[in-house]
Amino acid sequence: MRRANDRVAGWMREAGLTVREDRFGNIAGRIESSRPGAPVLFLGSHLDTVRDAGKFDGALGVLLPIAALIELCRRGVSLPYAVEVIGFSEEEGVRFPTAYLGSKAFTGQLRAADLNLRNANGVSVREALQRWSGLTPSRRTGVAERVSVSRECFTASTTPRLGVKSLPRRENLIGYVEVHLEQGPVLERENLPVGVVSAIAGQTRGRWTFRGRAGHAGTTPMHLRRDALAGAAEFLTVAEGLARASEPLVVTAGSLSVKPGAPNVIPGEVVFSLDVRHPRNASRRAALRLLRLAAQKIAHNRKLTCAWEQTQDNGAVACSPKLMTLLEESVRKVHGRSLQLMSGAGHDAVIMSAKMPVGMLFVRCRDGLSHHPDEHASAADVDVALQVMVDFLERLASPPRVARTTTATRK
Amino acid sequence: MRRANDRVAGWMREAGLTVREDRFGNIAGRIESSRPGAPVLFLGSHLDTVRDAGKFDGALGVLLPIAALIELCRRGVSLPYAVEVIGFSEEEGVRFPTAYLGSKAFTGQLRAADLNLRNANGVSVREALQRWSGLTPSRRTGVAERVSVSRECFTASTTPRLGVKSLPRRENLIGYVEVHLEQGPVLERENLPVGVVSAIAGQTRGRWTFRGRAGHAGTTPMHLRRDALAGAAEFLTVAEGLARASEPLVVTAGSLSVKPGAPNVIPGEVVFSLDVRHPRNASRRAALRLLRLAAQKIAHNRKLTCAWEQTQDNGAVACSPKLMTLLEESVRKVHGRSLQLMSGAGHDAVIMSAKMPVGMLFVRCRDGLSHHPDEHASAADVDVALQVMVDFLERLASPPRVARTTTATRK
Repeated sequence: MRRANDRVAGWMREAGLTVREDRFGNIAGRIESSRPGAPVLFLGSHLDTVRDAGKFDGALGVLLPIAALIELCRRGVSLPYAVEVIGFSEEEGVRFPTAYLGSKAFTGQLRAADLNLRNANGVSVREALQRWSGLTPSRRTGVAERVSVSRECFTASTTPRLGVKSLPRRENLIGYVEVHLEQGPVLERENLPVGVVSAIAGQTRGRWTFRGRAGHAGTTPMHLRRDALAGAAEFLTVAEGLARASEPLVVTAGSLSVKPGAPNVIPGEVVFSLDVRHPRNASRRAALRLLRLAAQKIAHNRKLTCAWEQTQDNGAVACSPKLMTLLEESVRKVHGRSLQLMSGAGHDAVIMSAKMPVGMLFVRCRDGLSHHPDEHASAADVDVALQVMVDFLERLASPPRVARTTTATRK
Repeated sequence: MRRANDRVAGWMREAGLTVREDRFGNIAGRIESSRPGAPVLFLGSHLDTVRDAGKFDGALGVLLPIAALIELCRRGVSLPYAVEVIGFSEEEGVRFPTAYLGSKAFTGQLRAADLNLRNANGVSVREALQRWSGLTPSRRTGVAERVSVSRECFTASTTPRLGVKSLPRRENLIGYVEVHLEQGPVLERENLPVGVVSAIAGQTRGRWTFRGRAGHAGTTPMHLRRDALAGAAEFLTVAEGLARASEPLVVTAGSLSVKPGAPNVIPGEVVFSLDVRHPRNASRRAALRLLRLAAQKIAHNRKLTCAWEQTQDNGAVACSPKLMTLLEESVRKVHGRSLQLMSGAGHDAVIMSAKMPVGMLFVRCRDGLSHHPDEHASAADVDVALQVMVDFLERLASPPRVARTTTATRK
């Protein structure tokens, strides 16, 4: 992490950005506007990823805006707003058992309880932060020595003891735009290099249990069984049918275990995870209601019991219509056709949305594959995304074109 | 085992039986007929059971015939055939990874490969037999000292080196009748104390695999998924429907595992066991054909692959119509109503059926529960079974009543 931040800070500096790093390892490169009191636009994504992952997830969204600012500089364009490119730390929730630690700290949304979370080796977030603060930028990379680390800049707002940067007041914020790999198959299927995200799906995750009665697989006739797995199978088939009929709803049972789990014993208990996502909160909640009713009915008909326990519940995040419109105009100009799509995965934009409007641009990835060494976005697709970003930054600099925006929205 | 055999041998001796024990720990108590060259009837079950089990499974079928012979002796009845009550060893397949070792040895069906099987501690069947042969009857139990252990009697027939008793020639065998707990819920549901087994189901067990493609639970729309668990759930629902519509067919998926098995990852692979039983071989095979076709079709529609691997295949055993008729006549006389039912579980009768006609009488067990400390048969039900056995032995002693038997069969 020390080396990655040093490397990225070096590139930011080369692009003419002023670099700061906070106590959470978030790195921010800023270019001020020539206009005094100008608003600020945040761009970026995360610099961490999962173990044994690819090289695009997160990093693409940090490097691409730097390249875009270099291109604008080359063209001699001066923006009427400040731009801050952020490389967030700890987005994935791999090291500590919670996601978005970096962006939460950046926006003052970290709770004291988050600091007490421990990693697999028993090290708490608090302890890791103390160790991190002791790390000076590496002297091994030439660029690192040129990083201006000004921890003092990151003074606290809502969480004073965490040393988190205070965000500018709301009226000065334009928003946050994140470029990210799609991590799914939609753009590839649609043969499009990029797509504009309409919303980040809300997500409810739970642990569902069907309980019946274990019994001898040979001596219990079908009509006297209370087979928990047969009940779960019926429910999963119903759940899949509901989701298929209600796209963009997605319902996934990713883990399932059977007790007692012997080939000659009728399952007495089945526990499975159910992950339900939809870009609209009301639709997600309606789906959950239907799923619970279906489970109850199936359990009742089979003399089983059914229970569920919610383990996660994040509301949906709608992207800013204004930012979406501008992004779509840029996509149409650069590529000709623009597609809106939902983000089923969560991103730092979820956390940023609590403080400002957000927008996202997805880049096609090969086979929809991510979090894998074979993760790939073509240079051509990344170039389209770069041109879109450059065009977007210029478009955002233009005077408001209310009529045109309205027309685009109505399309 | 030493203590159990000594105890049972003592009871056999008290009942006037001549007791022998073979090198496999099978114990047999025999009463000869006064008629020279009389045929022999075998009665019995197994004396082992599973860990943490109840006290009826197996043992009931050894002790009940002893009690029946005592009752006949009390009444002064002399049978025109010999009776041999057997307590088989190692029926469950708990200690060594195969079932029916005792009855296989008793009937000369043991293979050399069986002797090389090893238990969890690495001890082979061969080594265990050597240790067992060195064990003399315990002196700790009073009854044991009265056991006449005549290993010499158990001379070999088909497996000479194993010291297994040679069975009488086929024409002298009446058959084998086993009393056993039902281990299922049918008799309880029908409110009957006992039932006559029509057949022991054939059983095919296999390992089935659906393979699809793992993917992100949030970013992959339903119509682009190749979800192995969704495919398996659809198949299991179809399989259950087929079995429900085709009773006494039973189909059970007792174990199931999902890979990669994370809540936010679409399952890429599901492996489950499928246990298929039916009292008729042709029906079991037809069901397997249908299940395989259904799996292929489901896999094809979902762009999954499906594979299966057979791990066990035992043919069905039909009970002897003659023995069934006599047992049913006895049940009707003692209790008034007789029900035929299938045995879904295997029993020593499966092995004995290779050498002689077999019959079985099931005794109601509470909640259909077996292999559990709460396993229970009421004293009243056991008494009905005892009366049925006594009546059956007398009925078998009567001259053949062809017309009556035929009528009964036609009912």
